[in-house]
Formats: sequence, structure tokens, C-alpha cells
Amino acid sequence: MSAINRLRELEREIVHLHDAAAVLGWDQQTYMPKGAAAGRAEQLATLSTLAHQKLTSDEFRSTLEEAEKESATLDPDSDDAALVRVTRRDFDKATKVPEELVTEESRLTALAHEVWVEARKKNDFGLFLPYLEKIVDLSLRKADHLGYEDHPYDALLDQFEPGAKTAEVKALFQSLREPLVGLLREIQATGIESSGIMTRSYPIEKQKEVTNDVVQRIGFDFETGRQDIAPHPFCTSFGNKDVRLTTRFDEHYLPGSLYASMHEAGHGMYEQGSPDEYEGTFLRGGASLGIHESQSRFWENQVGRSRAFTNYYLPRLKEFFPESLADVDEEAFYRAANEVKASLIRVEADEVTYPLHIMLRFEIETAMVERKVNLKELPELWNSKMEEYLGITPPSDADGVLQDVHWSGGMIGYFPTYLLGTLAAAQIWNAMQSELGGLEARIEAGEFQPILGWLRERVHRYGRKYLPNELLKRATGSELDSTHMMNYLRAKYSEIYGLSVTV
Amino acid sequence: MSAINRLRELEREIVHLHDAAAVLGWDQQTYMPKGAAAGRAEQLATLSTLAHQKLTSDEFRSTLEEAEKESATLDPDSDDAALVRVTRRDFDKATKVPEELVTEESRLTALAHEVWVEARKKNDFGLFLPYLEKIVDLSLRKADHLGYEDHPYDALLDQFEPGAKTAEVKALFQSLREPLVGLLREIQATGIESSGIMTRSYPIEKQKEVTNDVVQRIGFDFETGRQDIAPHPFCTSFGNKDVRLTTRFDEHYLPGSLYASMHEAGHGMYEQGSPDEYEGTFLRGGASLGIHESQSRFWENQVGRSRAFTNYYLPRLKEFFPESLADVDEEAFYRAANEVKASLIRVEADEVTYPLHIMLRFEIETAMVERKVNLKELPELWNSKMEEYLGITPPSDADGVLQDVHWSGGMIGYFPTYLLGTLAAAQIWNAMQSELGGLEARIEAGEFQPILGWLRERVHRYGRKYLPNELLKRATGSELDSTHMMNYLRAKYSEIYGLSVTV
Repeated sequence: MSAINRLRELEREIVHLHDAAAVLGWDQQTYMPKGAAAGRAEQLATLSTLAHQKLTSDEFRSTLEEAEKESATLDPDSDDAALVRVTRRDFDKATKVPEELVTEESRLTALAHEVWVEARKKNDFGLFLPYLEKIVDLSLRKADHLGYEDHPYDALLDQFEPGAKTAEVKALFQSLREPLVGLLREIQATGIESSGIMTRSYPIEKQKEVTNDVVQRIGFDFETGRQDIAPHPFCTSFGNKDVRLTTRFDEHYLPGSLYASMHEAGHGMYEQGSPDEYEGTFLRGGASLGIHESQSRFWENQVGRSRAFTNYYLPRLKEFFPESLADVDEEAFYRAANEVKASLIRVEADEVTYPLHIMLRFEIETAMVERKVNLKELPELWNSKMEEYLGITPPSDADGVLQDVHWSGGMIGYFPTYLLGTLAAAQIWNAMQSELGGLEARIEAGEFQPILGWLRERVHRYGRKYLPNELLKRATGSELDSTHMMNYLRAKYSEIYGLSVTV
Repeated sequence: MSAINRLRELEREIVHLHDAAAVLGWDQQTYMPKGAAAGRAEQLATLSTLAHQKLTSDEFRSTLEEAEKESATLDPDSDDAALVRVTRRDFDKATKVPEELVTEESRLTALAHEVWVEARKKNDFGLFLPYLEKIVDLSLRKADHLGYEDHPYDALLDQFEPGAKTAEVKALFQSLREPLVGLLREIQATGIESSGIMTRSYPIEKQKEVTNDVVQRIGFDFETGRQDIAPHPFCTSFGNKDVRLTTRFDEHYLPGSLYASMHEAGHGMYEQGSPDEYEGTFLRGGASLGIHESQSRFWENQVGRSRAFTNYYLPRLKEFFPESLADVDEEAFYRAANEVKASLIRVEADEVTYPLHIMLRFEIETAMVERKVNLKELPELWNSKMEEYLGITPPSDADGVLQDVHWSGGMIGYFPTYLLGTLAAAQIWNAMQSELGGLEARIEAGEFQPILGWLRERVHRYGRKYLPNELLKRATGSELDSTHMMNYLRAKYSEIYGLSVTV
């Protein structure tokens, strides 16, 4: 057997261990009884330890090295060569950080998570501060092990967005700040208030039907997936034939299930589009968190919150909610789905303010990593940036610096992927529009198959084969470019709020 | 660290792999999308292969051997000594059968299962016959590897009921045949027909509420367990803090959910009663399938189908089903819950005919293993025994020899545990009655805690520490004795059907 095929065999075992852990994780969020938490944590620790041991074993290393020799003569664009490259990247990531540090991190973050929950509940940043300090220290040590050329944050970012560079992200985000803040101020100046349509009564049983209906219509396959309820919506998969979405319901907030389920279905269809021949190997899945987010944001915003989709879906929605939507026409619903309002919480933010939430976090994270901020002063820094970008000041740290789970989990470097994905979604829309054309008409007619087909062909079918930047270039013809999103937002919201299109 | 503690560490990993596999198995039966079946089979194969490799490793063997030396000086009744004994049993079972045979069996049974499904659908025993022949051959080879003194069936039986002997089971079952068949004939002679109460309309949504209500009332803990829907009811657990019941619903058959959920809750409460200190070790769980069945049949029949329970629960049931039960009083419901009718399908059988279904299978299995029956003639043998014991002949093999899944899964030796458990349930009732007293009054008052407490104290808290026979002796004061069940059935059904109590 060739070394590359032996590598595939070794990977299959590791992938299955991760799949099993993912099933246990899904169950934990959806159905697991409360009392099982401690036992589940131990089961998960065993599975990830085993997977890590297999990946970092001498057998794996030597097989990989032989496979690298074999692949030297292959077409670099072949799947085999890509498999070896991707495996090398994963292997290095797993082996560069010493096992003691991995253990230290998992202990620290398990504890830090508990403390963060408590601190948020009590609105007491001081409680979380010593853990955050340790997490920043540990992240810097981890960055040293992972290695970087320019900036320690590069190493952290690379965990979630392979190949991305801090300097590039910084430039990209900085170019957005002024136009975005400007757009928001103009919108705020109109004084237009919420219509209150989305916060009417939408019975939860009906919302459940709607979320299943809508994700099926856009192309999520229930033969190889399902949707359940979880406190926080997420998507996970145990192979391209088993993809799980979750959503949640609030009787008085329809977008919280409608658009959230389209968002998760965007992730889900990406996973369902990973090719069969990549199953059981490290090529399976999505290129990065950013590319994943490009898919979810595309279906949520470019499709879901479009006028075309509203025209298509509102008549159907009225069948589910005849009372609450009786007096609502397409135009009113479209505007309700796209109300812009500076708010405290990232996960509730609209398209215009969402990027500002991310930029704020990115700036704070890089400042933390550069040791340019005394962590004690983080709440003040957070609040002053909120005031600067969004024009509001959190009344409490619970709704400010303590709102996100990421830092307590050691996930410094994760936030930028949300905005990178949002940028990519707009860029993908434009590329698809110039190739396929008439996207709005297709959406209005409920013809989602060509749209999904384009994504399958240009993005999904490559799994993890290409680095995100390369994949985006192949899919859209150019590198990530923030003007697509900015133009999209400017055009869309100028029309909605009656602003001039150019400033 | 002592060798026994090192053994515990090794076991923890293996137990967690089995737990993970059990979660994947539960998901497969409850929520998994159809298209995921092939991938799930591979994930499960990886987990069980890894667990098997860990158990049969040199490290495990040598640690076990050292632990055996250590335990030689311990109190044989200590948990440590028991752990070493139980582990030796499991280790021997895992290592005595050569890996090729294990692989051959899993391939053969995977295929045989498919064929059995097909054969049953087409009512074509000939289709299944060659697979059954291979399964019997393989089982005999397996028995040779596992080893036995008197009868190859001993080795097969021992897989499910450690320590049980074919000769003893045969004698036990034979002593029941005549009195059971006699009782059935007397009941049949009364000509009393079904009241039809149980097949009225019981809306499924309400049945769901009932099953959750009833298992909670008898003591199943939803903090550490839950109940879902599956095509065939079962109970599985991933530790004593995570126990999953499943049930199913037929609008026109109330016992199919009501008593089935009490049955599964009996299994579930046994798992929930396994002590914390056994978690992560081979001592966790239940002593055998037979003892497990004693718990499930106890709650289903001795409790659930009693007059006392009917008196307690019918008023509550009437709140769920006011229309269907309006004209039904306690006596009528009790009789409806205990209607005896010779029927074709084991899983639908009443208390009187159920043992006959098991005896028939046991006799056929031992004949197969002794090569005393030409497998081609199995349908005729099945049908003639059905006629002899139950007085009915299956109109088709689908409802006859092809009805059970067990043989296609290679589980020859499993069936007797159903009846051994049923016998033990009656024996346990009598022991509990003489110690606690007033069981009927307690049940009628809804006081299940003393009953569950007795089971916890006498059965559950020992996990797998004792062999089933020894456990039963400790719990009830005597070895398994079939007169308890026979007297129970005779008394109960004589009263219901107006027979003389002694024949």
C-alpha cells in the first residue's frame, strides 16, 4: 500500500474519534440530561486524548514523512498532494504545542469557563480578570510554540483562519471603520423607529415548522441532516451525510429562528457539499471558519434578508402566522427584517453594526496580545470603543466585555473570522451574480438550486483542499476585498433608509 | 500506583469508548438521519476496534496479572477483588475468541441482518437459511474458543448470563411447561373475550405525557436520564448519570407505551442505581441480561399490571384520556391490562404466554447447537411447537420463525435471559413482600420509594460485582426458583379468569 493510502487509513481512525466526540458534543447541547455533565466531560476528554495520541504518534509522523516523499512527484493540485499538505499543517499544529501546555490549557479553560459564567451572572469583571490574564499569558506561550513571523496574533489567528495575517486583517478592517460608522450615523439621523413587526407573537410550534420548511427550501438535505433545539444555535457534522443544525425559539422574536436557521443551514449545506472521496480524511469539511461563515452569512443575509426572498417567502409565512402578519406587506416585512439599531450584543446585531462589533473585539485582542492594554482596564476600553463606533455605552460589563464565551475558552484569534466571512459572502454574491445573473429573480421564484449548485462547484467540493485565500480567489477571481461588502451595505441601506447612495 | 489502580485507569479509557459507542448507537435509533447509516457503522466499528485493542493489549494483560497478584491478599468480597475477577472474565472473553473470528462474525452478522430484514419482508425463510447455517457454524466455533464443560450452549449462554448452565436452564424451563400450558388451556376454556378497552383511541401526544409521568412517579430520575421515541423500545446508558429510555406509540394500543415505558424504566433505574464508585470501571452496570430483565419485568408486571397500581394510576390516566376511559372502572382496566391470549408475536405476549415463547426458542436453539435439527426444517419445528404450547400455528414464517432479530445478529444464547429475568422478578417480589410487607398498599398509595430503595440496596448497588446467581441469592435468600413465578401466575390469573387456584 502506498504511504498516502496508509496515511488515509490512519486518518480515518482519527476522524472517527473526532466524529464520535462531535456526536457527544451535539447530544450535550441538545438532549443530554443535566446530571450527565461531569461524565460527558470525561468521555470527551478520553476521545480527544486518544485522537491527539494517534495524530502525534511516531507511526503517524513516519507515515506522513513517507507520504511527503511520495507526493513530491505528484501534481501539486491533486487531491493526494493536498491531503499530504493539509495533514502536515494539522500535524504541525498538534505537535508544536507541548502536551503539558495542551493539558494546562484545557484545565485552565474548563475552570475559566465556569468563572466566566459566574462573573457574567454577577456582572463582576474582577472575578474573571485573573483567568483572562492567565489565558492571555498562555496564548502568548502557545503562539511562541506555533511560531510566527510578524506578530504573535498571526499564530493565534492561523488556528482558525489558516494563512491569514494580522497586518492584512488590520488593514482590511481599518478601511471599513469610517464608512461603516458614517453609514450608521446617517441611519441613526433619520430617526426611523422599529415597526415592531418582528416582535409580535409568533407561536413557537409554528416557528419550528417554519425553520424546517425554510432550510429545506433553500437546499438543506434532511436525508443527511436534521434540525434540533439548543440554547445557542450551532451547526455540527459527523461526516457529509450527517449534518446537524440547531436553532432556538422566542415567541416574540421571529428573526431569531427564521434567519438563524438559514444561517446554520448555510454552514450545514457547506458540510453536506464536502465530497464523498474526502470522507474519513483530513480533507473533509470546510476550508476555515471564515469561509464557513461566508456560507452561513450568504444564506442568512444576501439571500434571507433580501427583498427577493421576502417576496418569495412572506406569502408562505403568512400561512404559518395568519394573525400576526395579516396587515404586513412585502415592503414592510423587508424593512422589518433589515432594521438597523446600535445594540449592545453582537449576536443580535444587524448587518451594519455587526462588523463594528467584530472590529472592536479584534482591536482589543491585538492590544491584549501586544500587551498594550492593562487587562484591568478592559471594561473601560470596551465601553469607550462601543461609544466611539456604535454611539452607546453598555450599562453593565455583563452586556459589555463579559458577553462572549470565546476568551474563557482560550479562543483568542477567533473573532475576526466572523467578519472575514461576512466580507467573503458579499464578494461571493457579486461573483455569482456576474456569472449566473438574475439572482434576485431566481430567489423570488424559489429557485435556489442554481445558487447552491454554484457554491457546491466553486466552494464546497474542495473541502479543506485549499487555504481560504486561495479558495476565495478560485471561486471569485480575486482576493478578499472589503469593497464588496461596503458597497452592498451602502446600496441596500441607503435605499431602505432613504440616504444618498454615495457620501 | 497500585496495579489495581492502574487497571482502573486502563478501564476508564475502554469504558469511555464503549460509552461513546453507546451514545452513537442511541442517536442511530432515535434521531440520526437515514443517509448517515453507512458512516455511522464505520464510526462504531472504529470505536469498538479501539476498545477491543485496548482491552486485549499487552499492557492490559500484564496490569491485570499484577492486579491479580495484589488481589490475592484482599478480602474476596472487597470491590477491588471483585473488580479484578470481573475484569478477568471480560478479558478472557475478549481474548479467547481470535480476532479473525470476531471480524468474520461482525461481517457475517451485518450481512445476515440485511438478509433477515429482506427475508422477513418477503416471508421467505429460504433466503435467510444459508446465513443462519453460517451463524450456527460460527457460534459453535466461538463456543469452542470460549470453552465449556458440559454443553457448547453453555459457552453461548454465558456471554449473556454469566455462570448459567444449559442443563439447569433446561430443568427450570421444563418444570414450567406443563403447568403453564395447563393454565393457558384453562383460561382459553373460559371463552372470555377481550374487552377492547386497550385498543380504543389514545391520542399519541397524551401517551407521550403519560409515559413521562409514569416513569417519573415510579422513580426514574430525569436529572440523570431522559425518554425518547424509537422504533423498538430500549434502554441504554452512558454512565449512571446518563440513562436513556425509548418508547413508541400506537394510538390504538395503550399498553405498548404505558407498560413498555415502565419496563424500560426498570432497566433504567437499575443503571441509575449503579454506584458512583464503580463509574469508569468494569464493575459498572448490571450483573447480567437476566438480572436486568428481572428489574424491567418487575416494574412492568409485578408493579405495573397489578390491581394496586391500576387503582393508583387509573384516575390519573382518566385525566389524560377522559373520553376513552370515561366508562372504565378499576376492575375493568385491571382485567384489560391482563388479558391472556395465545398470539404469534413474542414482544406482544401476555404474562402467561410469554414464557412459552421463550421456552420454544430455547429448545430450538439448543437443538440447533446440538445439530439435532436440520435447519431447513426449522419453520416446521417452530410451527409444531407453537401448536403444542400455544395452540396456534403461524400463518407465515414472517410471523413465525423469522420474527426475532436475535439470530441474524449472532445472538444465540440470549433468549433464555428473558425468562430467567421473569422468574427472578417474581422471586424478588416475594422476598420484598416478606421483608417490607404491604407492597400492594404502598403501590396503591403511590409510595414507590421503599420498593425502589429495596432494589437499590439488594440489587442495584452491586453493579456487576456478583454473578447473577450469587446476587439473586444475596437479594432473596435463595437460588432461582421457578415456583415463585408459577404461583404468582396461577394465583393472579385464576382470580381474573375465575379458575380454581390449585389444579
